[in-house]
Amino acid sequence: MKLMHPLTYPSFRTVLERGAPVKIAGVHSALGGILAEQAGFGALWASGFEISAARGLPDASLLTMTEFLQAAADVQKATGIPVIADCDSGYGNNLNAAHMVHEYERAGITAVCIEDKTYPKMNSFAERGHELVEAADFARKIAAAKQAQSDAEFFVIARTEALICGQDVDTAIERCRRYTAAGADAVLVHSKQPTNAQILEFLDRWPEPVPVVIVPTTYPDWHFDDAVKAGVSAVIYANQGLRAIVTALSAAFGSILARGAADPLTGEIASVEDVFRLQRLPEWQALQ
Amino acid sequence: MKLMHPLTYPSFRTVLERGAPVKIAGVHSALGGILAEQAGFGALWASGFEISAARGLPDASLLTMTEFLQAAADVQKATGIPVIADCDSGYGNNLNAAHMVHEYERAGITAVCIEDKTYPKMNSFAERGHELVEAADFARKIAAAKQAQSDAEFFVIARTEALICGQDVDTAIERCRRYTAAGADAVLVHSKQPTNAQILEFLDRWPEPVPVVIVPTTYPDWHFDDAVKAGVSAVIYANQGLRAIVTALSAAFGSILARGAADPLTGEIASVEDVFRLQRLPEWQALQ
Amino acid sequence: MKLMHPLTYPSFRTVLERGAPVKIAGVHSALGGILAEQAGFGALWASGFEISAARGLPDASLLTMTEFLQAAADVQKATGIPVIADCDSGYGNNLNAAHMVHEYERAGITAVCIEDKTYPKMNSFAERGHELVEAADFARKIAAAKQAQSDAEFFVIARTEALICGQDVDTAIERCRRYTAAGADAVLVHSKQPTNAQILEFLDRWPEPVPVVIVPTTYPDWHFDDAVKAGVSAVIYANQGLRAIVTALSAAFGSILARGAADPLTGEIASVEDVFRLQRLPEWQALQ
Amino acid sequence: MKLMHPLTYPSFRTVLERGAPVKIAGVHSALGGILAEQAGFGALWASGFEISAARGLPDASLLTMTEFLQAAADVQKATGIPVIADCDSGYGNNLNAAHMVHEYERAGITAVCIEDKTYPKMNSFAERGHELVEAADFARKIAAAKQAQSDAEFFVIARTEALICGQDVDTAIERCRRYTAAGADAVLVHSKQPTNAQILEFLDRWPEPVPVVIVPTTYPDWHFDDAVKAGVSAVIYANQGLRAIVTALSAAFGSILARGAADPLTGEIASVEDVFRLQRLPEWQALQ
Repeated sequence: MKLMHPLTYPSFRTVLERGAPVKIAGVHSALGGILAEQAGFGALWASGFEISAARGLPDASLLTMTEFLQAAADVQKATGIPVIADCDSGYGNNLNAAHMVHEYERAGITAVCIEDKTYPKMNSFAERGHELVEAADFARKIAAAKQAQSDAEFFVIARTEALICGQDVDTAIERCRRYTAAGADAVLVHSKQPTNAQILEFLDRWPEPVPVVIVPTTYPDWHFDDAVKAGVSAVIYANQGLRAIVTALSAAFGSILARGAADPLTGEIASVEDVFRLQRLPEWQALQ
Repeated sequence: MKLMHPLTYPSFRTVLERGAPVKIAGVHSALGGILAEQAGFGALWASGFEISAARGLPDASLLTMTEFLQAAADVQKATGIPVIADCDSGYGNNLNAAHMVHEYERAGITAVCIEDKTYPKMNSFAERGHELVEAADFARKIAAAKQAQSDAEFFVIARTEALICGQDVDTAIERCRRYTAAGADAVLVHSKQPTNAQILEFLDRWPEPVPVVIVPTTYPDWHFDDAVKAGVSAVIYANQGLRAIVTALSAAFGSILARGAADPLTGEIASVEDVFRLQRLPEWQALQ
Repeated sequence: MKLMHPLTYPSFRTVLERGAPVKIAGVHSALGGILAEQAGFGALWASGFEISAARGLPDASLLTMTEFLQAAADVQKATGIPVIADCDSGYGNNLNAAHMVHEYERAGITAVCIEDKTYPKMNSFAERGHELVEAADFARKIAAAKQAQSDAEFFVIARTEALICGQDVDTAIERCRRYTAAGADAVLVHSKQPTNAQILEFLDRWPEPVPVVIVPTTYPDWHFDDAVKAGVSAVIYANQGLRAIVTALSAAFGSILARGAADPLTGEIASVEDVFRLQRLPEWQALQ
Repeated sequence: MKLMHPLTYPSFRTVLERGAPVKIAGVHSALGGILAEQAGFGALWASGFEISAARGLPDASLLTMTEFLQAAADVQKATGIPVIADCDSGYGNNLNAAHMVHEYERAGITAVCIEDKTYPKMNSFAERGHELVEAADFARKIAAAKQAQSDAEFFVIARTEALICGQDVDTAIERCRRYTAAGADAVLVHSKQPTNAQILEFLDRWPEPVPVVIVPTTYPDWHFDDAVKAGVSAVIYANQGLRAIVTALSAAFGSILARGAADPLTGEIASVEDVFRLQRLPEWQALQ
């Protein structure tokens, strides 16, 4: 009997190479990871936006690599599916990117994603504050990250923010080609248009045999199967969990105060025993 | 303009001495603290059960003081109401209790609660694994904690698990009197009966002018005003937030997988812009 | 070129199975580990006494597992020889011991040592405050730790404090036999007698084919080769590094204040360039 | 009896305003802080170079704010003199600088120092990799830091690396004037020339009534009293402690291996009982 999944989860590379496109849930806690795994997701996204929001801070490189890594590692320790760590713009320069890979790999994370913006960065959905770095510089950062890895399993996703920063699809493709040439194992192309048009154009013209990952936050109606048909290998549902939590907590706290007691929540929320099962309490108690 | 509330929140003692009984929300993250403060709670309970569950572990002294303190401090840094830290059985012996006070006080926590069980402990609602320590020993631990504090504001709640461990109300009262004599600033009497009968009996006979705190998890229908009339000074709604999160996350993750897209959640969950407001993104952006 | 040794160090089991007895240096920092490796030690002891003293605290279970693990992992990340983590009495009960193994293994530590005293414990050289647990209970804790490991490489050393607590060699042997039967990969027998007499007697009568580790702090004149001839497999020089640091820092700080300047230290202490080499600065700079 | 100095140390501002110039020792651990305080230093410098080296990493913004703050806070918790935290270039942009102040202030640090180089930075004594930011931008960062503080005691030192980066004294003065105008409480002017000539020129022409701090690493023969006569308010002996440790550890480890036993070190290094006194073991034991 194993209480957790220590060292026994597949790498993200392994999951991807099984061939089926991957549904990935954004999370910020081990509990979120456990529930997403139970629901049936194939991998987890340790979202910088979610982790920052859980700490009451904007997603603007305020939390440190230490804090993001801790959160990602806590998720990975509690689950049997791989975590992809959202690693901002790599926490600095090439030295930082290499150090990042050492630290994440050592902590059991099998995949990271870094984006081609300056460090510190601003969240992609914020209206301003975005600045792309030169494509050649980011390609060197990807190369530094890949050179730093110890285990061939480790997986680096290069994310372009070209579309977020108002560049066109040509630029996004050109950047992603450079990152792929530098060793990126996959590319993530991000858009905040209200439709999937930019992404469809990207996919239609993407010339490389390298997987494409998307994050359909602003075009949430795009069905997974349709995205796959268009050439997507993995879809990250990046922040719906956090947003559901905000609504649920506001409702629960409001209900208690409105009623002056917690009884109306009974039956609407999980029971203490439900939580015990998520905590694997019986398995732990058997040890004593 | 202050982005956070650094050093500018009232202590729990101050809140209690305002005279009005206090409604306290259990939380495990800064985000939970922010939402509970917005809802109107007067203080926050950095719940050991919630913090453990968020990490996917049972509430059995597996997480360390470092981890519980980090969680409590993260909540306090993001809110303007005081956090009471649920400090298990004090993390060991009298030396540990003194060290605990040093560490929590230094981190800006103004109130802690420790319980009269052995360390490591087991969650109160678990069926087995509970062991009370001698009342005299726990009184000495309370005294050690009080002696360790630097600031007169610091507040120590002594929690008896006598009723949880099958002892009677006489025993609970006797224990709480000893703890009060040793310097406890308040007592917390915990019951897992399906009604408030034990607590009512305790309150009816509690002879000390020391505040009583309760946690009505198994008798959630007891109205706050009625508890106050019976003599309660503060009520902790300890874990409803976490339980609401479990339900909300399961529903959101399930919805995405069932539909193959996230669009049905739109309108049902908070928007990205709602999260930006909780993160105080505009105030932060004004700094740049 | 590798800047650190990520994932590429041998386990302690591997080092031990090479057949040559192992000299182990006590350290509390990565820098200490680097210098001990350069000096020629075969493994490192992440000493609870040293780590506590570096934090200005007694070695009495005041620092948490989180803090001890962080220190041990920081050492391991910087070195190419294995770290044995001094894990106190296992941080609590059997659940804690299992959780400990999960956490240490995940962090890349290949060997831990736990001792048969109550938790919290007191440093072995302190005059009082020691309490042995029942041998049967500690054997179960060893079994819980061994059952929790994921990788067959992981190594658990059972340390008996029987002699420290005034018991005789018979008791120490009997305890170690039980721990070995429960799965311990090696035993550590600790004595604070001013001679090696107790240890010699133990070795003379130790009946099991399981390695014996010693810590000759109070009998420092026992030559490594003689200890090996007597049956020892590994010797831990547990705290000399820390004690040398205390003397060196006092001298350096005193010199600066006495002279009113730092120049007399030049030539007596390492240069900034020496430190650059220990930091592998040129290798890191080559990345940029 | 207080085991530590919780909340009872003077701020760096208080120490400086006593009027006597201040001798400051560079440290990276609580133990170093305790020994420097015992030796007679008036304040402590939580050195980025030392903290990085203790982790086996170059001083190049590889460790995160979390790690530097942890180290600084650990020192402050163990000592009764104020810690000045060496905060690199402020860990990013203005938002990061504001966040930094929130975090350091909350952790009990009363003074920070930030420098006018890009983030990530390179250690001042490294031959290359230095880049100044625009003076106006750094002045805005100083203003953001000052605006973020909660307590009027908090102290921000603006450090110019103009001389390190090959600029002349005029530039250094002009930069420091701007930083002072933006609210800096003191300036630190750093030089790596083998003499104090640049610093003397700076002091001779420094027009502001704002304290000047120096770090005489490469001109260690300048007597403290002479520096004070030239106008210096505080001198940081930034890294001699670490360099003494490197030498002492190498010698101790070498001795053990050369001799095959630790006995020659006895009498040359502190005893275990000396360490017990530094750990305040008797005071802690009295609690039990």
